[in-house]
Amino acid sequence: MNVTIRGQTRSCRTVTFDANRNAVLLIEQRLLPHEFKIVATRDFRETAAAIRDMIVRGAGAIGATAAYGLAQGARRFRGRDRGRFSTHIEAVYQTLKAARPTAVDPVNALNAIRRAMICGETVEEQQALALAAAEEFANEDVRHCEAIGRHGAKLIRNGMRVLTHCNAGWLAFVDVGSATAPMYAAQAAGKKFHVFCDETRPRLQGATLTAWELAQQGISHQIIADNAAGHLMQRREIDLVIVGSDRTLGRTGEVTNKIGTYTKAVLAKRHGIPFYVAIPLSTIDWDLKRGLDIPIEERDESEVLGAWGVLQRRAGRVQSLKSSRAYVRVAPPASGARNPGFDVTPAELVTGIITPAGIFKPQELWARRKTLGLARQGAREGT
Amino acid sequence: MNVTIRGQTRSCRTVTFDANRNAVLLIEQRLLPHEFKIVATRDFRETAAAIRDMIVRGAGAIGATAAYGLAQGARRFRGRDRGRFSTHIEAVYQTLKAARPTAVDPVNALNAIRRAMICGETVEEQQALALAAAEEFANEDVRHCEAIGRHGAKLIRNGMRVLTHCNAGWLAFVDVGSATAPMYAAQAAGKKFHVFCDETRPRLQGATLTAWELAQQGISHQIIADNAAGHLMQRREIDLVIVGSDRTLGRTGEVTNKIGTYTKAVLAKRHGIPFYVAIPLSTIDWDLKRGLDIPIEERDESEVLGAWGVLQRRAGRVQSLKSSRAYVRVAPPASGARNPGFDVTPAELVTGIITPAGIFKPQELWARRKTLGLARQGAREGT
Repeated sequence: MNVTIRGQTRSCRTVTFDANRNAVLLIEQRLLPHEFKIVATRDFRETAAAIRDMIVRGAGAIGATAAYGLAQGARRFRGRDRGRFSTHIEAVYQTLKAARPTAVDPVNALNAIRRAMICGETVEEQQALALAAAEEFANEDVRHCEAIGRHGAKLIRNGMRVLTHCNAGWLAFVDVGSATAPMYAAQAAGKKFHVFCDETRPRLQGATLTAWELAQQGISHQIIADNAAGHLMQRREIDLVIVGSDRTLGRTGEVTNKIGTYTKAVLAKRHGIPFYVAIPLSTIDWDLKRGLDIPIEERDESEVLGAWGVLQRRAGRVQSLKSSRAYVRVAPPASGARNPGFDVTPAELVTGIITPAGIFKPQELWARRKTLGLARQGAREGT
Repeated sequence: MNVTIRGQTRSCRTVTFDANRNAVLLIEQRLLPHEFKIVATRDFRETAAAIRDMIVRGAGAIGATAAYGLAQGARRFRGRDRGRFSTHIEAVYQTLKAARPTAVDPVNALNAIRRAMICGETVEEQQALALAAAEEFANEDVRHCEAIGRHGAKLIRNGMRVLTHCNAGWLAFVDVGSATAPMYAAQAAGKKFHVFCDETRPRLQGATLTAWELAQQGISHQIIADNAAGHLMQRREIDLVIVGSDRTLGRTGEVTNKIGTYTKAVLAKRHGIPFYVAIPLSTIDWDLKRGLDIPIEERDESEVLGAWGVLQRRAGRVQSLKSSRAYVRVAPPASGARNPGFDVTPAELVTGIITPAGIFKPQELWARRKTLGLARQGAREGT
């Protein structure tokens, strides 16, 4: 998408690869919305750390980052011994896979790259295939998001108030985004609408990333506390909910997404408000049989016990954006926290899944697995 | 309750009155949990400002503060002209009433003091009656909370995990608290249980005040993001919910409380988890006919766009508690927020109302109005 920084507009992807430096280039998302900076990871371990520490986050973006990370790790190998190369690749694979356990995109990405490498007869050929497959994974992510936008834009009518949770915007993908794709497409079609962004504690991705994206694109929006959506629904101020997902089960239609998504789905159901989940095909997990088996990441309690922002005098202006980024402790010294990172929304609460192949009931995914699954694998393997 | 600061334990009420200085003494709640400080307001306008600016907050505490504020305003009057005194009292009444529009406790408190003053034949007598009535209002608040504790403690069984939202603890009343009263009583009875405190964005009263109270009393607890309760309920990690209320409609059983309460009630209903609301009788509004008529305060957007805390190095210790209190801006400069302060939970979602007179179904309140209403007025008027 276009980014305007200090009056200069440039086109930008969340994740790219610099083949000359064998480096993954990432928008440093922890600095947004206060600072826009691109960082380079020069080693697969550093790339895994960038995923784990959330320099990059979001289903598609960490998928592409893992894909590039595997190519990066493969290209780092010196020598022609295919056995040793294979052992090395396995270590790279495991390091990248372990970075965020709840999401399925990195696993799908890593598997796609490994499948693509099989055709190479030499280490060198396999290294080249890994990079080509990673580039294709990233490009496909963009095409998927664009297709989600085409299908989802029909759901947004003039004057609607749309709620979204966390950030499933272009920052969460290589470009365009999933939950935001219908918004960007609707805007391009000239529709006027308003977006409520759940701030999404504890990491506040809605208040920071989604609000920043919408502000950049000039879409009318307001941030709300996660507590406020229920009240707004009661007062009929929300017409539609669109969120993303980190792992949607193809067999059951259960949707794993940022903590708090389930709550919004329960509220939307009670108020008869359509609740949609927008995902590229790489977010579908065709293996797991039930949501209870999805590992739910328990993150560090410091995220709940305080908040990150930029220092500001009360009612004053931001003084020095770059130097004044700070963590404030909110809780008493003697108190701890629980911090589950995700929750699982059952299919019965989901009106529809917006995929690149169209909008489906969550319970339909399995019946459509040939279409959805074959399309995915076909594209991933370049057939 | 007892407060231990730097190893020294003292007994403390949230609100008291210093007759010699004609000052209301308040715990400066905006500094908690990082600093414990008592401030004095020396004029009824300053007292109203303390309510509006949330130096003091919580149903019972602002009720007692308004009561003391009216006595303070009455005692400030010089002269014997009852007509001018009456005009003055009306101005004091309106100033204090306007400080927080959603809560009913200040209105009930102010009316009780005015009723008590009627019996005075001179300005001086009326001034004395106002102070006596304010003291009685505060003492009754404590007795009510103690009675809530006796009734509510039965609901807490050994090993339970109890969720609470915002702060309806002793800091929200003159002492003991409403939602926390059953916890303190259960603890006194030797029961072991665990409390999850919703952090309660945007002002974080759960993460700051409730966590501080529970830590002070040595009750096992953890803070959670407001987003996390749904997930914990899904995983059967919450057995009981107890919250407070700022205004409960006696005619319909609808419960007004801090924004986000409605959401927790919807979730509790879905999971079959008992949802209780603990209130003194002064929180019951016998007049309003429907929740939609309750004015919902829309607060400043800066509360949502950032957070207050104390500065801290990442993973380091608090450096200087007193001097480092800071506001961090979270949102992008171009983004705004909606900030409704309260929501209304319908009676069908409430398992029971824990009152000083016992536990009732919300729909029962009106049928019991004689008992509940007469008890209240009798005590308030000292008969």
